[in-house]
Amino acid sequence: MVSLTLALDAMGGDFGPQVTVPAAMRALARFPKLSITLFGDSTQITRHIPSQLSNHPRLTIEHCQQVVTMSDRPLTALRNRRDSSMRKAIDMVQQGRADACVSAGNTGVLMAMSKLILKTLPGIDRPALIAKLPSINDQPVYMLDLGANVNCDSEALFQFAVMGSVVAETVDAISAPRVSLLNIGEEDIKGNDVVRQTAELLKDSNHINYRGFIEGHQIFKGVTDVIVCDGFVGNISLKTTEGVANLMIGHVKQLSQLNFFTKFLGLLAAPLLKKAFCKMKPDQYNGASLLGLRGIVVKSHGNADQDAFLNAIKQAVVEVEQQVPQRIQDRLESMLLEKIC
Amino acid sequence: MVSLTLALDAMGGDFGPQVTVPAAMRALARFPKLSITLFGDSTQITRHIPSQLSNHPRLTIEHCQQVVTMSDRPLTALRNRRDSSMRKAIDMVQQGRADACVSAGNTGVLMAMSKLILKTLPGIDRPALIAKLPSINDQPVYMLDLGANVNCDSEALFQFAVMGSVVAETVDAISAPRVSLLNIGEEDIKGNDVVRQTAELLKDSNHINYRGFIEGHQIFKGVTDVIVCDGFVGNISLKTTEGVANLMIGHVKQLSQLNFFTKFLGLLAAPLLKKAFCKMKPDQYNGASLLGLRGIVVKSHGNADQDAFLNAIKQAVVEVEQQVPQRIQDRLESMLLEKIC
Repeated sequence: MVSLTLALDAMGGDFGPQVTVPAAMRALARFPKLSITLFGDSTQITRHIPSQLSNHPRLTIEHCQQVVTMSDRPLTALRNRRDSSMRKAIDMVQQGRADACVSAGNTGVLMAMSKLILKTLPGIDRPALIAKLPSINDQPVYMLDLGANVNCDSEALFQFAVMGSVVAETVDAISAPRVSLLNIGEEDIKGNDVVRQTAELLKDSNHINYRGFIEGHQIFKGVTDVIVCDGFVGNISLKTTEGVANLMIGHVKQLSQLNFFTKFLGLLAAPLLKKAFCKMKPDQYNGASLLGLRGIVVKSHGNADQDAFLNAIKQAVVEVEQQVPQRIQDRLESMLLEKIC
Repeated sequence: MVSLTLALDAMGGDFGPQVTVPAAMRALARFPKLSITLFGDSTQITRHIPSQLSNHPRLTIEHCQQVVTMSDRPLTALRNRRDSSMRKAIDMVQQGRADACVSAGNTGVLMAMSKLILKTLPGIDRPALIAKLPSINDQPVYMLDLGANVNCDSEALFQFAVMGSVVAETVDAISAPRVSLLNIGEEDIKGNDVVRQTAELLKDSNHINYRGFIEGHQIFKGVTDVIVCDGFVGNISLKTTEGVANLMIGHVKQLSQLNFFTKFLGLLAAPLLKKAFCKMKPDQYNGASLLGLRGIVVKSHGNADQDAFLNAIKQAVVEVEQQVPQRIQDRLESMLLEKIC
């Protein structure tokens, strides 16, 4: 691993420093060439650093007086949260002092700040939130957008398809990744105007291996590599996944409490089930990346626990090592230029 | 049970008469006062009726020369599928010869035909597809629209909220049902314009116990009674549910094949898991109702098997017995009139 520095928004998420700081300490222990700068209330941050690690050589704390809240509107936050932990962490990436930023804070504000400060790659109008989902044949499925863009036109969805395709190709070495549009039916006539218009754009593109519409029940079937949708639909679909996983865990727990035999069964089967179920909370167990920026920004789930936030940090490390934005930019330039010509 | 007659579109769904006819025969055996008229290709239908039941006194076959396909557009089908099994089944309800219609066919066409032939209730512009979902505390959660309306304005979503509330109140005897809007965050500022405008309409209503926004992971938590969304989002959320359930079943099956011990465990735990998992395919295991019509139309899942189609038939029977449209109309009239005054 090369030496790298991450800027962490320590105040983001439901639990703030209570989760982000211990996760950061674990990341420092795990990656010997990693340096971390924690942005936020220094008193709160320090409280969660064990005394023997208080002078960690690879840890820096930058005090910030403001915090972006979950109810902050993006435009207001751009104006009034210039000294927030989120803003300062992104600034550090823009200044070239950090290789990537990780935050579990307000998605809309993170997207707006990242776009304003880091700018988008040439040919990309709006960054999109992408995550890897599990599938039945264990092949990763990328899905975007997962909540950064509430309203999307066909041009935005087309750009998401290009970005998703490039990520699958460069990061996972998938040749000619299959790209599908999330819709309410597989037939050409199904869906709304935006989805149908996007389908036409994708059909006309020589650079996208477009495979048509895909329905919600096919997301995890491993029948495609990249699933494209707007951020409203993507966010609800992803969070529905989490809800179903929780419900099924709950049902199994309830049923296993019925009698001695089912309790015994539940105990025996627990490791088996835990392994199966954990895979089903992709947004909690992995970070999602804001794609299309001139820099790396990883969004951790708002109610991420230490493990989940650590996973988001690990993801940022991988993206830095693989130089994801640069590789996307290289690929994008040729694809989008050829589209224009 | 009172005597009642159902009109069944025998040709709808992925499997047609192969599934619909045996399910109809089981329904006739189960409900001694039920009569069924099967609409479709009489040769294909007859092939699936056991010879000893070929002259069943409560079964009628009405031959139709046309079938609505999954790729038929609603407007085209309205013009060119007048002798289709779906159209004829709805016609029978309109003529007062049947109490309800059941179809597993093209949702868009079913919605358009039902609206044209049966008409909507006073105060309702567009019917919506509603289904009962499971929840962790076993309280039913109604969700609508599940795919009948791709584009919805705030007035349409408001009407869905009214209908959903009335169904929960009249069918499940829930007093002042809690109504929530599906969104990508709980804060007032989250979501798109339509969702936020609907929230304002619902806040202003004295007749709706509006509880704010709900996110995808909260659908099954039993924290609300009625979840309102447009048909695009609802359909994808519901089908994601099915996809997750299938994936988890797949994972458990894969893991249980690892070695002798896990095989043994899998075998022991199978009934427990089956019970938990079956609950998680609400759209497959129950029919969805087209709400807001002057008649009862139940939509079965396109790839419903015999059990699932039988469940849709049972649901139609219950709705007839409970006089759902009449009760909704009574309640709607007072609610919507008071809204206007």
